[in-house]
Amino acid sequence: MVKQERAARTRRSLIRAAAEIFAAEGFVPASLTMISRRAGVSNGALHFHFTSKEALAGAVEEEAAREVRLITESRGCDEAPVLQLLVDATHALMRRLDEDVVVQAGFELSGDLSRPGGVDLRRQWRCWVEGILQRAASDGGLADGVAPDQAADALLAATVGFEVLGARDGKEWLSRPALTRFWELMLPGLAARPDSLVTRGSPGAACPRANEA
Amino acid sequence: MVKQERAARTRRSLIRAAAEIFAAEGFVPASLTMISRRAGVSNGALHFHFTSKEALAGAVEEEAAREVRLITESRGCDEAPVLQLLVDATHALMRRLDEDVVVQAGFELSGDLSRPGGVDLRRQWRCWVEGILQRAASDGGLADGVAPDQAADALLAATVGFEVLGARDGKEWLSRPALTRFWELMLPGLAARPDSLVTRGSPGAACPRANEA
Repeated sequence: MVKQERAARTRRSLIRAAAEIFAAEGFVPASLTMISRRAGVSNGALHFHFTSKEALAGAVEEEAAREVRLITESRGCDEAPVLQLLVDATHALMRRLDEDVVVQAGFELSGDLSRPGGVDLRRQWRCWVEGILQRAASDGGLADGVAPDQAADALLAATVGFEVLGARDGKEWLSRPALTRFWELMLPGLAARPDSLVTRGSPGAACPRANEA
Repeated sequence: MVKQERAARTRRSLIRAAAEIFAAEGFVPASLTMISRRAGVSNGALHFHFTSKEALAGAVEEEAAREVRLITESRGCDEAPVLQLLVDATHALMRRLDEDVVVQAGFELSGDLSRPGGVDLRRQWRCWVEGILQRAASDGGLADGVAPDQAADALLAATVGFEVLGARDGKEWLSRPALTRFWELMLPGLAARPDSLVTRGSPGAACPRANEA
């Protein structure tokens, strides 16, 4: 039991170390030696858990996908408009990208040209966004003429932009004010009643972790 | 003279071959041998023009920056609202990203985590966007409460998102319909008179190349 716990802890620290190296250096230049050194474990221990760099990247993506599901499965307040879920979830996603290197590396890996395939976090996110927009449309929550699938594309592009700029040019791209200003610009064209929505995110709902902690 | 022309042609084909390899493989995995082979020139000829992969990347970025300047220096119609210049320039930029691998690779290089420094095309683009938004603000063309620098950030994020998705997930992200839908969503929050703007770009103004050809 103690041995199993230790193995699970080693596995987690390898995933985290891999995420840190992938996020800082990119997938191609990263080596298993850099990762095992960062995790403070031997090469043998690394190979016990992961047979290749690709397997480690897959584990980082799986873990990041789990975090994204935690965000998108958060229900929010029943009384709030459907679009508020979307605003809140984008704030929560940016916060996870800012705070959790595994989520950041997971998205980076999804966008790495040298590494096609694997869990596609961007697709997962877009799919959820489109579902929310469809619900909003059937509730009459979208502005006239807005098609959910087309709006989902525009919102995906913006999310990817913030994510990429946050990784490259500084964490302020992932900050609540940056995303709030984006929603202030976007909601008048997207929502039937933009004034009913809180662009900086509902109090307390911005991150599912806040409720869990 | 013939010799100079031939040298200039070789240099151009090396820049283009480098852009193709960088865009397809990324900067780190690309090798000078791959590039000289793609250009159909000897390693010696490559080294005559460029001393390193970094020098080639710099030349790709310079060339891409020149193309972006061609877009942003296009004056448009005098009667059109200032924001129309912005809409038209984003359409022109997406078209260049779609059609010109040097522009695409230049933007990719600007966002490559393994390669800081160099010409920053994203910064160049953002700077121009902010200037246009400031002109629009002083003409009363922005919606109430819109700050040019903050709107420039949101527009940069979206541009980067379309660029990154276009490179990774398919050229339809760079298409006129995709960007038109983005502007349809964005203009009601950005512009004082959104109905005065043509979201799909002014006829004939969408690409400066169309006028030059």
